[in-house]
Amino acid sequence: MNHLTPAKVLAAVLTLTLAPLLAPAVARAADAAQMEANKKVVQQLYDAVLNQKDFDKASQFLGPRYTQHNPNAADGPEGLKGFIGFLKEKFPNNHSEIKRIFADGDYVIVHVHAVREPGTRGNAIIDIFKLENGKVVEHWDVVQPIPEKAANSNGMF
Amino acid sequence: MNHLTPAKVLAAVLTLTLAPLLAPAVARAADAAQMEANKKVVQQLYDAVLNQKDFDKASQFLGPRYTQHNPNAADGPEGLKGFIGFLKEKFPNNHSEIKRIFADGDYVIVHVHAVREPGTRGNAIIDIFKLENGKVVEHWDVVQPIPEKAANSNGMF
Repeated sequence: MNHLTPAKVLAAVLTLTLAPLLAPAVARAADAAQMEANKKVVQQLYDAVLNQKDFDKASQFLGPRYTQHNPNAADGPEGLKGFIGFLKEKFPNNHSEIKRIFADGDYVIVHVHAVREPGTRGNAIIDIFKLENGKVVEHWDVVQPIPEKAANSNGMF
Repeated sequence: MNHLTPAKVLAAVLTLTLAPLLAPAVARAADAAQMEANKKVVQQLYDAVLNQKDFDKASQFLGPRYTQHNPNAADGPEGLKGFIGFLKEKFPNNHSEIKRIFADGDYVIVHVHAVREPGTRGNAIIDIFKLENGKVVEHWDVVQPIPEKAANSNGMF
């Protein structure tokens, strides 16, 4: 009942040939999908913190830790909560716009124009976020006020 | 003379099956290789400019343009030459260390600790470079002095 027909042989050969050839491609496609998902998580976290100023919403995108490297912010989710409270009180109209977003492995990088008071030049910021299991667990950034005059006409973005 | 043997049929089926399945994987592998090459180019450019302060060496890694978004630097390769001259004259001991490097598509991002005078805290910098055909054609950065005291104990890197 279990004849080795040419079709069965062909199926076996195809399976044995394709599986090892396609495994790295499948892994790479999964990595690419995870990186795109990570970008979306960072975009949502950024908007929840800087624009909506909503800690409960923001906390959905955080993992079990939030290791903070911004020297002006306290560590952890509680530090983020404090920062959002500060923004709501001092700069309720703060608006931060992501100009560019990149992903590499577990990291997402955003280049941002942040304006704390409408009508001011604001800051150029680049943030780096580390993600684990699709949630943000660590944050670094660098912040620079946009100067009135520049040595070139290209703008900071 | 041209018999359709089972072996020939199998070879034809394998070729027709594998080619379309592997094409995206091959393209993705090529992208990954280009991104790794781009990282190496940026590392070499960075070292040539900030540490070796050697414009001739640096210019090997530049494309036909060098669009500058750092507001303190003049545009183009000539602007970079002027910046290197400034470093050599004012901060000959400047040392910049790349702490993290990322690549996404045509872009390479570096997180850097730059110390202009040995023994000082220095600056935290994140640079974004755009590459075309394996050469650097555009540059953005954000620079922040590392403060003496911080609200957390994690450091800026």
